Amino acid sequence: MPLLGLLPRRAWASLLSQLLRPPCASCTGAVRCQSQVAEAVLTSQLKAHQEKPNFIIKTPKGTRDLSPQHMVVREKILDLVISCFKRHGAKGMDTPAFELKETLTEKYGEDSGLMYDLKDQGGELLSLRYDLTVPFARYLAMNKVKKMKRYHVGKVWRRESPTIVQGRYREFCQCDFDIAGQFDPMIPDAECLKIMCEILSGLQLGDFLIKMAWKDVRHEMVVKKGLAPEVADRIGDYVQCHGGVSLVEQMFQDPRLSQNKQALEGLGDLKLLFEYLTLFGIADKISFDLSLARGLDYYTGVIYEAMLLQTPTQAGEEPLNVGSVAAGGRYDGLVGMFDPKGHKVPCVGLSIGVERIFYIVEQRMKTKGEKVRTTETQVFVATPQKNFLQERLKLIAELWDSGIKAEMLYKNNPKLLTQLHYCESTGIPLVVIIGEQELKEGVIKIRSVASREEVAIKRENFVAEIQKRLSES
Amino acid sequence: MPLLGLLPRRAWASLLSQLLRPPCASCTGAVRCQSQVAEAVLTSQLKAHQEKPNFIIKTPKGTRDLSPQHMVVREKILDLVISCFKRHGAKGMDTPAFELKETLTEKYGEDSGLMYDLKDQGGELLSLRYDLTVPFARYLAMNKVKKMKRYHVGKVWRRESPTIVQGRYREFCQCDFDIAGQFDPMIPDAECLKIMCEILSGLQLGDFLIKMAWKDVRHEMVVKKGLAPEVADRIGDYVQCHGGVSLVEQMFQDPRLSQNKQALEGLGDLKLLFEYLTLFGIADKISFDLSLARGLDYYTGVIYEAMLLQTPTQAGEEPLNVGSVAAGGRYDGLVGMFDPKGHKVPCVGLSIGVERIFYIVEQRMKTKGEKVRTTETQVFVATPQKNFLQERLKLIAELWDSGIKAEMLYKNNPKLLTQLHYCESTGIPLVVIIGEQELKEGVIKIRSVASREEVAIKRENFVAEIQKRLSES
Repeated sequence: MPLLGLLPRRAWASLLSQLLRPPCASCTGAVRCQSQVAEAVLTSQLKAHQEKPNFIIKTPKGTRDLSPQHMVVREKILDLVISCFKRHGAKGMDTPAFELKETLTEKYGEDSGLMYDLKDQGGELLSLRYDLTVPFARYLAMNKVKKMKRYHVGKVWRRESPTIVQGRYREFCQCDFDIAGQFDPMIPDAECLKIMCEILSGLQLGDFLIKMAWKDVRHEMVVKKGLAPEVADRIGDYVQCHGGVSLVEQMFQDPRLSQNKQALEGLGDLKLLFEYLTLFGIADKISFDLSLARGLDYYTGVIYEAMLLQTPTQAGEEPLNVGSVAAGGRYDGLVGMFDPKGHKVPCVGLSIGVERIFYIVEQRMKTKGEKVRTTETQVFVATPQKNFLQERLKLIAELWDSGIKAEMLYKNNPKLLTQLHYCESTGIPLVVIIGEQELKEGVIKIRSVASREEVAIKRENFVAEIQKRLSES
Repeated sequence: MPLLGLLPRRAWASLLSQLLRPPCASCTGAVRCQSQVAEAVLTSQLKAHQEKPNFIIKTPKGTRDLSPQHMVVREKILDLVISCFKRHGAKGMDTPAFELKETLTEKYGEDSGLMYDLKDQGGELLSLRYDLTVPFARYLAMNKVKKMKRYHVGKVWRRESPTIVQGRYREFCQCDFDIAGQFDPMIPDAECLKIMCEILSGLQLGDFLIKMAWKDVRHEMVVKKGLAPEVADRIGDYVQCHGGVSLVEQMFQDPRLSQNKQALEGLGDLKLLFEYLTLFGIADKISFDLSLARGLDYYTGVIYEAMLLQTPTQAGEEPLNVGSVAAGGRYDGLVGMFDPKGHKVPCVGLSIGVERIFYIVEQRMKTKGEKVRTTETQVFVATPQKNFLQERLKLIAELWDSGIKAEMLYKNNPKLLTQLHYCESTGIPLVVIIGEQELKEGVIKIRSVASREEVAIKRENFVAEIQKRLSES
């Protein structure tokens, strides 16, 4: 039954793609504006200079540059996400940006049409990767890896059709953690949920809830196994309920479920999972939600989705419609699709919707008026006099060679005010000043930009003094 | 003269592309083998299972997966490179993986044919980026940025034609640092050379030398300005020489050069540069090499290239032909190509040939038999008895919640030997052990994997004790 494995993946990918596609409509307004302004500016300029390039300078539709401001926020968030993945023993890996087209074919259901194909320039037919999960499954099958805990942070590309492109980027970052291998039931699944909780707590995005859907309970047992209609109806009651351990217990005590073998097995696994989540201290974060089970036909086990419970609305902040910020699930059939003998490697994983998280954090910083430093420079080398370029170059080389982050202006004779203003505007905390007086006395002045205090330090001790001050701050 | 700006860039890109293309022929042997083996295995298996997928599982030609082992080496090297860029006050940024095709057109000279075009799926015509420099220039022009010091680490793609693909990857990583803006002469140029030296020293790749070519000295003054033939001849003598400051001094003292206005200007700038390099303490690392000046017509200033002087040959190590590991230069015309009014933004930058460096470091580790840990796990949670899953889950959650990197086996009842073997094979230094005895006494055993010593610690103190041990090691 080579086609059987296709189905679970397709639906899981479809859910993931809906959950994780970056950010919501509101967040691209700025980008679209910027692009329109740029186009307008350029068009007007082109009229006056018809001899200059007659194309518009822009990034491709659905993409954008990441400015230094964006990068600072991303780096912080990705550091937190990756350090959580490492805390759970995951190895890093990477795959090429594109795959053979046939590797990706029939993995994404109706979303296949949204892949970026490369032009046939002779040779293989290629497509840009659409997620990080299919390349991972291809890697496992190709290298006959039966067991692996890995994370992968990288860009993926989805050519959203114009009608649904509204507010979504076509290039975006994914952060995935997956556990491949045959293990005792629910232990890796529980760890994936724990990881989601750790990351969402760590990012301090406010309260969140992870909603789970359980395939086997409804579809597998009711539709496929042909449960009696009254049992299906009974389950229908639970579908309306949301809840955690208590809901599982409730279902267990329902004789119409607990007296059915298939139902009992499914409920047993579910109970086990909640037992582990309780030991992990996160059971209260997980809500069992049968009504969530979109595309239920195709999953091979649990699927889950993390929602922010309330947007961090603060004075003057635009209300955010952020929704889902992480999703995951079990996909036991995907690796087998790549294996010539169809050998399966059970997998469970999660994907953090980092683009949405970037957006939330950026908006929050904007609201608070938080200024982001886009450099990490610790010391600025300045002079109040002319003809001190040589001394400045010597001093800055000493700082660099001692591992200190240092800058100076690339001018022979900059004004002192310009230099101090540069420190203030870029947030550099310390200035070392060398002038005629200092040179004569064999000292260097160290100035705190915040307090404007200056002290003279012996030339030969200045690096040590800087290091001391930096370690204290 | 809208075409004038095209030329300098073209040759610089061509030089860079020759210098920085990743690694040498020898290094893909393993990858090719692996791929052939994979193909053979698959082909044989396919014979027995004709009903299974009839395509080969592989990565696209010229690309490869990066295994956890690769990733560990890369992460270390990229950390060092990026921290150097930050030490010099650079901001991070990123651009999309693809650009409008016309953005890249006519920037790379004859290499244009090597770009990956995306399929025309309706909409814009796109190509994968070929380097990080043209997207940077596009960014500056599009946002009207006149001054910026940025670094950019990212993948680029070059569709090498089959005849030259030998040993080169079509997808590879570049690490670029660039300074854009109008500044006093040679100060940013000297900093770029300083950065190259810091990175190459920091990576401990062995001795290296940065070779510089100076366009103005030979081409600009001799060919374009029509110097007297005897002056050209005289310069011909110097072309044979390699050297640093002394060579510049020597040329200065040659009346046939020093009495020529253009020659004197060019030499003056060169002298200035060497003065700055001396103040930076790196003049001895820089060799002035007129014979290097390939494609001399097109540069707007200095171009430079860093070569490893000797390969780190050690007992049993294959001789490495690594050649150039970094390159850079001045490209004052590129940004103007994107500006409707042709406004120029002078730029100077460098690109670290990280793929070659990855390869050298990997080879060296292989020779030394150095084992790479692919995870960072600090503590393993084990039990010698059955039915201790619950206790293990509680313990590991405490460790995770305290920020400690911890793992356990996903088995209900793993054997103790299997658990300890896992620690040894993956390099986990500490084990916490919980069993019946420990549970009864309210303790946890902490075991050092290296010394096999075990101590019992009160259950409530075990996290603190672990943290103490980790901070000491």
